[in-house]
Amino acid sequence: MNNVLKKVAILGVGLIGGSIALGLKRHFGSKITILGSCNSIERAKEAKRLGIIDEIIDLHAQPLGLRSVNLIVLAAPVGEIIKLLNMLSRINLGKCLIIDVGSTKEYIINAANQLLDTNISFIGTHPMAGSEMSGFENASVNLFRNKPWLVCPSQNTVKGSIPVVTEIISALGAKPIMMDAVSHDVNSSWASHLSLITSSILVNLCAKQKNWDEIAQIASTGFRDSTRLASDNPNMKTDIVQTNRQNLIKCLKALNTEISSFLELLNKNNRQDILEYFQHAKVKRDEWIQNYFS
Amino acid sequence: MNNVLKKVAILGVGLIGGSIALGLKRHFGSKITILGSCNSIERAKEAKRLGIIDEIIDLHAQPLGLRSVNLIVLAAPVGEIIKLLNMLSRINLGKCLIIDVGSTKEYIINAANQLLDTNISFIGTHPMAGSEMSGFENASVNLFRNKPWLVCPSQNTVKGSIPVVTEIISALGAKPIMMDAVSHDVNSSWASHLSLITSSILVNLCAKQKNWDEIAQIASTGFRDSTRLASDNPNMKTDIVQTNRQNLIKCLKALNTEISSFLELLNKNNRQDILEYFQHAKVKRDEWIQNYFS
Repeated sequence: MNNVLKKVAILGVGLIGGSIALGLKRHFGSKITILGSCNSIERAKEAKRLGIIDEIIDLHAQPLGLRSVNLIVLAAPVGEIIKLLNMLSRINLGKCLIIDVGSTKEYIINAANQLLDTNISFIGTHPMAGSEMSGFENASVNLFRNKPWLVCPSQNTVKGSIPVVTEIISALGAKPIMMDAVSHDVNSSWASHLSLITSSILVNLCAKQKNWDEIAQIASTGFRDSTRLASDNPNMKTDIVQTNRQNLIKCLKALNTEISSFLELLNKNNRQDILEYFQHAKVKRDEWIQNYFS
Repeated sequence: MNNVLKKVAILGVGLIGGSIALGLKRHFGSKITILGSCNSIERAKEAKRLGIIDEIIDLHAQPLGLRSVNLIVLAAPVGEIIKLLNMLSRINLGKCLIIDVGSTKEYIINAANQLLDTNISFIGTHPMAGSEMSGFENASVNLFRNKPWLVCPSQNTVKGSIPVVTEIISALGAKPIMMDAVSHDVNSSWASHLSLITSSILVNLCAKQKNWDEIAQIASTGFRDSTRLASDNPNMKTDIVQTNRQNLIKCLKALNTEISSFLELLNKNNRQDILEYFQHAKVKRDEWIQNYFS
């Protein structure tokens, strides 16, 4: 085990932070000490009571407690991560590795590069895993199993830290994938952020129909799955769309164009053309499931 | 048990037809005899071998075997159901109850009213349940549990048949909901058919991006769930959009407008407005889950 992992602080012990804590404990056992902070001291006490963290770190009262830590994990929505980076910039941390697990990378990495001391190694990362269930009560060592976990080094990254981070990611059962921050944000806009938005759009559009009560009564598993992400944390989603705005504007414009093309197919009403549209989608999705989920 | 259930023919023993067969067997045991047909005699033999049906009915060689049946269930995509109704119209069935489980109702019910003899009681129905896994191998007695199952009587419905059908639906664990065919098609366009289309649109749009390989590599459970319906049967979907076309054109135009409204929010970039959009979607979906899925 790398020395960096002796004492780890997870700032933001929720679903993701809690699952990281559980996974590190499972993998490294008593050799690792995990400090944690939550939205409130009461929540942090509960996380400690449940054995998810070993010690509470009170960022308001005793932020200097972080000085003894080798690795800091920022596990919060993007906006909170920026606040944490500001807070960390005011502490003389010494040599330290900091990673974040926020959903967009360019914005966070730029902030880290501006704010953090150069003796700190910072690596932006992004686990492609989540759940509409939030909070450490829903944390699980299995959350990251076989999931992609993006690693985006930048000018503030000490090269030797990269294998440490990929070791942690592998220990948590995920697949580390190296990617620059700009590519991360473009690719994530399609792979992840667009679905976050369309789920909410579908719900809001259906819910505003005058017959919503009847729609709601007959909607079933298809609607449930297509809109699952609409139940995700609204703050997290707002942070994402505000820090990946230009990419998402392009996605949504392209989506409007794609819908218009499909409307054209419906207007022409040629069976073969409509069938081929659905067949193509099925082939592509089945291939994707085959390659990445089986 | 109603006499109607002594001998039942399920025309189209796939995921839905197979689950109906399993559920009826579970509930009524050896008092019921289930005849079944599949796309091919080989498939029907396999369904019989697995104990899903008791007897094979060969619609090409011996359609008259249906004369001894009390209840016929048409369990196929809409286009196949129309073909089956044409076939049934050429047999002197005598008194008989026929139901279908197709995804759109006005088109099917109009065809049934035109084609079927008046001594046949026809009821259009629609179980709001499914899976991207097709075929009777994936059939389950639990498929319909607590799911809505719409019942749409029409001019060809003998009134006394309605409680028989709702009894069957309850026996299968589903919740019977009475609705006229026109309302069914409007409500289903929002609750079910729109998601079928948007799932496919999302996949085709992402798959045509030049960076699809990277998108595919990092896409995870969010993308998987949002696009699950894209793996559904393309023929079934084509039938649905062609027989519920006018409603779906309205839905898709409204979706384009909703996306444009959200784009407007992104352009203005007012945090509170974006947050409220996501909060509203979360409230509505959480309410829906609470009311119908817990």
